[in-house]
Amino acid sequence: MSNAYVHGYSSEENIRLADQADTLAELLHCDTRYPANSRVLEAGCGVGAQTVYLAANSPGAKITSIDISALSLAEAEETIRGQGLTNVEFQKADLFDLPYEAESFDHVFACFVLEHLPEPVAALKALRRVVKKGGTLTVIEGDHGSYYCHPRSVYADRVVQCLVDVQAAAGGDALIGRRLYPLLRQSGFADITVSPRMVYVDAGRPTWVEGFTKNTFTAMVSGVRDKALGMDLIDGAAWDRGIADLLRTTEADGTFCYTFFKAIGVNPKGL
Amino acid sequence: MSNAYVHGYSSEENIRLADQADTLAELLHCDTRYPANSRVLEAGCGVGAQTVYLAANSPGAKITSIDISALSLAEAEETIRGQGLTNVEFQKADLFDLPYEAESFDHVFACFVLEHLPEPVAALKALRRVVKKGGTLTVIEGDHGSYYCHPRSVYADRVVQCLVDVQAAAGGDALIGRRLYPLLRQSGFADITVSPRMVYVDAGRPTWVEGFTKNTFTAMVSGVRDKALGMDLIDGAAWDRGIADLLRTTEADGTFCYTFFKAIGVNPKGL
Repeated sequence: MSNAYVHGYSSEENIRLADQADTLAELLHCDTRYPANSRVLEAGCGVGAQTVYLAANSPGAKITSIDISALSLAEAEETIRGQGLTNVEFQKADLFDLPYEAESFDHVFACFVLEHLPEPVAALKALRRVVKKGGTLTVIEGDHGSYYCHPRSVYADRVVQCLVDVQAAAGGDALIGRRLYPLLRQSGFADITVSPRMVYVDAGRPTWVEGFTKNTFTAMVSGVRDKALGMDLIDGAAWDRGIADLLRTTEADGTFCYTFFKAIGVNPKGL
Repeated sequence: MSNAYVHGYSSEENIRLADQADTLAELLHCDTRYPANSRVLEAGCGVGAQTVYLAANSPGAKITSIDISALSLAEAEETIRGQGLTNVEFQKADLFDLPYEAESFDHVFACFVLEHLPEPVAALKALRRVVKKGGTLTVIEGDHGSYYCHPRSVYADRVVQCLVDVQAAAGGDALIGRRLYPLLRQSGFADITVSPRMVYVDAGRPTWVEGFTKNTFTAMVSGVRDKALGMDLIDGAAWDRGIADLLRTTEADGTFCYTFFKAIGVNPKGL
């Protein structure tokens, strides 16, 4: 995977990833529970922002969390140990060159990974090879086209579009959430179910106003300012207006919507 | 009916509600149940499309369904009688000139009404007057800005925008769903909870492909063709391409998303 990971590897991004997990964790992960002694591969664990929930929700499972970045893995390991979790081992590995035998895992889990890859189907096929027949793949992704808000703002829309464009230039697809069903189909999975996980924010939900609209979504958009300006997608004044208009939705009359997609597929027997 | 259902549901229950609803009626109405002998006003019943579910789900409630159109009321009455429902009386009335004393209903219900009105706050205030202190208002609305699909299409986006523009020209707001919380606040309701009801469609959900993407949403957009062309918003070829692209999402690799919003507020005591 190239270094063009759109969110970068700075501390601020690491903090954002953690903030995001703290506010979204129940919505995204509450129904993922692996049986005791099951072998689970977490592909692309990054700094461990999702790993903590994965591990805590499946205390008896044996989780192998991999990432291509040694730095991220080190942070992930520190976070997991700091939480007192003992059911995760970390390994540096490339999703496209997995150092595992076929069917060596009972289940595979990948959260916010496919959106950064030029070849999501290839990635899914690579993951399918290492999961046992009858085992499951769980994939969670966002879709920036699912964002809308009140008050509406063309400036806000534009900075979100900049993030989409920057991510596309890096080879990714920030609108991948809506594609999970056909992607899993194309990759040979069966019994696919996709469950949207919608975030809706209004002034009656202040922890989401702070934790999601401000500290997750707007923070994530803000993180690509330099790239967007550098790519001449937008000028500084329009950018700042867009961010301001996103934050406008955190006021008493504002609302904010965004949807994640959680797909589960089975590696079918007989193929 | 208390508001407790919303506060009482865990994330997992909310997720099941959304994932397992078989029909739009179930998704929108399954959790609206009024106690026996409660007096319920349904404002803007139209031809009774929602009335049938309202009445069936609250068999002991006494429902008064009003509309400004005598023709619609006649159709509604025929539909209700045809279903053998006996707990609804119909009345021709104007939402802005309700022929009822203050606080003469226990609860008020309005589905797909506010989106057509230039003054939704005035309508909500008019409804609040006739509901008892401590009684509830339930409002359900769509939001065409919540539509997105795969494959993406600027032509499809354009015909949806035509519908939004046609509705705006008629004084309405087809993007009203995201505004329900501040609208209810502004109208003096308290304890407001907004529950998004997302429709997600893929090839694994064929009844939704037929019943929603094709026969509800695309049919609704198709219905404004003449108006959109007449208003010079679009030409015939672009229109037909847009409809074709909406229908393209009903193929095996297509997906379709749309969200309704259900808001419940209480007429507060002490005001």
